[in-house]
Amino acid sequence: MTISNIVLVTRYGSLEAENAANKVAQLLHKRGANVYTVSPLAVMNAKQLESEHELRRTHLDLAIAIGGDGTVLRAVRWLSNAVPVFGLRLAGSRGILAETSLDEVESALDRIFANAFCLEKRMRIYASIDSLEFPPALNEILISRINVTRTPTFTIKFAKDQLRQRMDGIMIATPTGSTGHSFSLGGPVLHENLNVLVITPLSPVNRMPPLVVPNEPIEVRSNADSSIIVDGQSTFEIKFEQDITIARYKHDARFLRFETKGLRQLAKLGF
Amino acid sequence: MTISNIVLVTRYGSLEAENAANKVAQLLHKRGANVYTVSPLAVMNAKQLESEHELRRTHLDLAIAIGGDGTVLRAVRWLSNAVPVFGLRLAGSRGILAETSLDEVESALDRIFANAFCLEKRMRIYASIDSLEFPPALNEILISRINVTRTPTFTIKFAKDQLRQRMDGIMIATPTGSTGHSFSLGGPVLHENLNVLVITPLSPVNRMPPLVVPNEPIEVRSNADSSIIVDGQSTFEIKFEQDITIARYKHDARFLRFETKGLRQLAKLGF
Amino acid sequence: MTISNIVLVTRYGSLEAENAANKVAQLLHKRGANVYTVSPLAVMNAKQLESEHELRRTHLDLAIAIGGDGTVLRAVRWLSNAVPVFGLRLAGSRGILAETSLDEVESALDRIFANAFCLEKRMRIYASIDSLEFPPALNEILISRINVTRTPTFTIKFAKDQLRQRMDGIMIATPTGSTGHSFSLGGPVLHENLNVLVITPLSPVNRMPPLVVPNEPIEVRSNADSSIIVDGQSTFEIKFEQDITIARYKHDARFLRFETKGLRQLAKLGF
Amino acid sequence: MTISNIVLVTRYGSLEAENAANKVAQLLHKRGANVYTVSPLAVMNAKQLESEHELRRTHLDLAIAIGGDGTVLRAVRWLSNAVPVFGLRLAGSRGILAETSLDEVESALDRIFANAFCLEKRMRIYASIDSLEFPPALNEILISRINVTRTPTFTIKFAKDQLRQRMDGIMIATPTGSTGHSFSLGGPVLHENLNVLVITPLSPVNRMPPLVVPNEPIEVRSNADSSIIVDGQSTFEIKFEQDITIARYKHDARFLRFETKGLRQLAKLGF
Repeated sequence: MTISNIVLVTRYGSLEAENAANKVAQLLHKRGANVYTVSPLAVMNAKQLESEHELRRTHLDLAIAIGGDGTVLRAVRWLSNAVPVFGLRLAGSRGILAETSLDEVESALDRIFANAFCLEKRMRIYASIDSLEFPPALNEILISRINVTRTPTFTIKFAKDQLRQRMDGIMIATPTGSTGHSFSLGGPVLHENLNVLVITPLSPVNRMPPLVVPNEPIEVRSNADSSIIVDGQSTFEIKFEQDITIARYKHDARFLRFETKGLRQLAKLGF
Repeated sequence: MTISNIVLVTRYGSLEAENAANKVAQLLHKRGANVYTVSPLAVMNAKQLESEHELRRTHLDLAIAIGGDGTVLRAVRWLSNAVPVFGLRLAGSRGILAETSLDEVESALDRIFANAFCLEKRMRIYASIDSLEFPPALNEILISRINVTRTPTFTIKFAKDQLRQRMDGIMIATPTGSTGHSFSLGGPVLHENLNVLVITPLSPVNRMPPLVVPNEPIEVRSNADSSIIVDGQSTFEIKFEQDITIARYKHDARFLRFETKGLRQLAKLGF
Repeated sequence: MTISNIVLVTRYGSLEAENAANKVAQLLHKRGANVYTVSPLAVMNAKQLESEHELRRTHLDLAIAIGGDGTVLRAVRWLSNAVPVFGLRLAGSRGILAETSLDEVESALDRIFANAFCLEKRMRIYASIDSLEFPPALNEILISRINVTRTPTFTIKFAKDQLRQRMDGIMIATPTGSTGHSFSLGGPVLHENLNVLVITPLSPVNRMPPLVVPNEPIEVRSNADSSIIVDGQSTFEIKFEQDITIARYKHDARFLRFETKGLRQLAKLGF
Repeated sequence: MTISNIVLVTRYGSLEAENAANKVAQLLHKRGANVYTVSPLAVMNAKQLESEHELRRTHLDLAIAIGGDGTVLRAVRWLSNAVPVFGLRLAGSRGILAETSLDEVESALDRIFANAFCLEKRMRIYASIDSLEFPPALNEILISRINVTRTPTFTIKFAKDQLRQRMDGIMIATPTGSTGHSFSLGGPVLHENLNVLVITPLSPVNRMPPLVVPNEPIEVRSNADSSIIVDGQSTFEIKFEQDITIARYKHDARFLRFETKGLRQLAKLGF
């Protein structure tokens, strides 16, 4: 694998991340790589792409996300294709996705350009309504009521089953996302190798338990207007009584890693 | 206790409730009572009050809420003073607050006018910011993030203690409310006679447990813009970094009951 | 599939179940089947087997479990091979495993002898210590402290990961068992088609979440003497610091069903 | 308050605790105090009492518990009267009850003999069956099934209410105990100043919520033989269908403290 075209993605509005991006760009130039950024981020000697849309049409070998897990999630969502992502953690950021800290950037780049890494795949999901497709989620998709003075009824179809429950919202999380927002809602931790999803209710009137289901299309319908929230970062509003299909996304996310680890998730939670 | 001035409050937009109101008004006239409604509800031979504001200035002996628990909650909130509320449950409505069904209205009125009832008090809470007071809640006050793409940090002060936690929102519920939305969030059931509150987190990053605290003022501050939602019915938007005080409301709610029961709450939950 | 050798298993100490067994035996004789029971159950014209051990060596085509889910669980455990089990529910018994009620026994037998049924497989697990194998579990294996005045430390190895936690016990449940004892401990519901297990802690000092893991061998070790409890019915005591391996059992359980249903589990829980 | 008679209680079977006890005894002698121990603990120049029974008949001004929270709990249970307890934490012990570490023992004794301390009261509960009284609990009383192959039905009466539920056991915890075993079972944290109890079910078949109730006598009855476990340390076996009454104990526990703190409990849980 030859790595010559690299895009830098940074934490929003962080001067520290921009400074780090300049430093990383310099190190990449020394190694003969072409460096890209996406507007508004501007970096010396790097080509500035206009938009996420242009980003997706550009031939890239790697994305370097500089920030914390939030920045990695954004880079992964922008790169809806399969460009690998490498996370550089800024001081003070937590992260299981971004695991190399900025201090170690030089030795990390040595390993990357020596092809001494492996690629870890993580399954993703996406929501769609008829032919309208929402961006893919690495962690979770939350379908949440907009009007907080009414408790909607959700109808959920999966495999050959159907459920109807009153609740504030419903979350569908991947194994990667099971330690994130889904965990905060009381969901179980799913081993990251499993090809399953967890359906976690948000404030269900009848304390419905989380359901672990096969990674097959799930259909969700609410009788109230809803927000679709992708990885806690990207929000869309939809009308009531629409059939939302949650299904596996065609491209897995790919992470550049230096070592295969066991359950990063448990380490993240302090277990 | 002489009961001569009675206001009727009905479920919003329910023809069935309006018909019931007309029937109840007729029965009340026969008994010589003055009947009131609040605009837009109009009932034959009843005086129509312009607004909740006018309602609060009118001398009343009783409110009859026709609908389900939602209608009772609204009547109680409008009557921020201590006018007793009697709930008449429409067919198909659940309710622990509205416990007499419409079929039994005649015998119920007989008992009411014979003074054969008791008044049950329920403590209420209200939120305030400086001198701005929000309406009182019988069940709970929810302080919830508005921007769903950010997880705010909440600072919560109670008794002599202080907590800081990242979460989507925070709920303070009374014993009456502990079987409602707070229960859906995983909170415990509080015996209705206790003078305590339960602080239940909404999707806390670190799975903070619910806290049961003395009924003393609690101070909540979020570093993000928030909604204050009173009894799941009335919503207000506030700016970040404001000190919200939750405290006991000066007037308890009062319910007209025919028999003292034990824990209505457990019956409601099916235990 | 020819069905000629059938064993009857009944609820322990239930006269009603014994009477039902006599009735069922008579119906089976009419159809030319050989009927067996296991001592101490004795039924007219049926051959009484001495023990579970003899049962397992007898060639059988079907077991009919008369009682509730507990009786089905016992029949399945005794038949550690793959003899199909059909559950007949006594009046007043709940059950998702035993789904045909005794009233319908005649039409049920008609369908069975007309080969108008399907066989549903359910994966099972078993515990072992070195070469010592414990009986298979359809629902769950619980490893629980014996001395209730001490909180042991459990070490749990699964896939390539390892956890150490202090708790009263640890449960490993199958999808079939996820609606049983594991649910009572706060575990998620697993779709019955998944090839996964859920590790649910019993009173963990640090509120460890349930973990959903691949159906691969799991190793559990406690630093205190423990009980191994198979499907809540069969108990074994073991010493501290022994490596207990939980793995998939070589024979799935097989249930005779008249129709394929979706998630029986949710129906069981009232959802 | 004159402090002249002091008993030392140490962690069971800990040489480190015994050495510490000898050191503390020496420091106490210098200050002219009479030092006691309870057999089998023997300390130079200290009077060895035969038993807990003799301990309770001895006039004492203070108990010093050397170990962790477990040792404090034991000292408190032995001293069923109101002798204050001071906890000295050994290196490596956690504790919210024992808050002074052994390193600080000299300055601690200076403060104690200068009367520069305060006494903190903590309410306790005890179980009784007819006239048989079990020892008092500072944290919790657990009533748990003995036969693990059967799920008993518990009947619980409190205030004017009654519940019947199938579960493995039932715990009644004080506010002090709400961060202990009750927390591990999913119970809420109760503010330590509240005069309430929390009833937390152990593996309830129907996911009954924890109940927070007034500190009034609670009656518990199981249809199976049970263990009564006091503070996780002291166990008693009782027959099925006996009425166990849990009520406030006549003597609160008293702790010698150097400063009043807010919610020690939350600090303990890392919040």
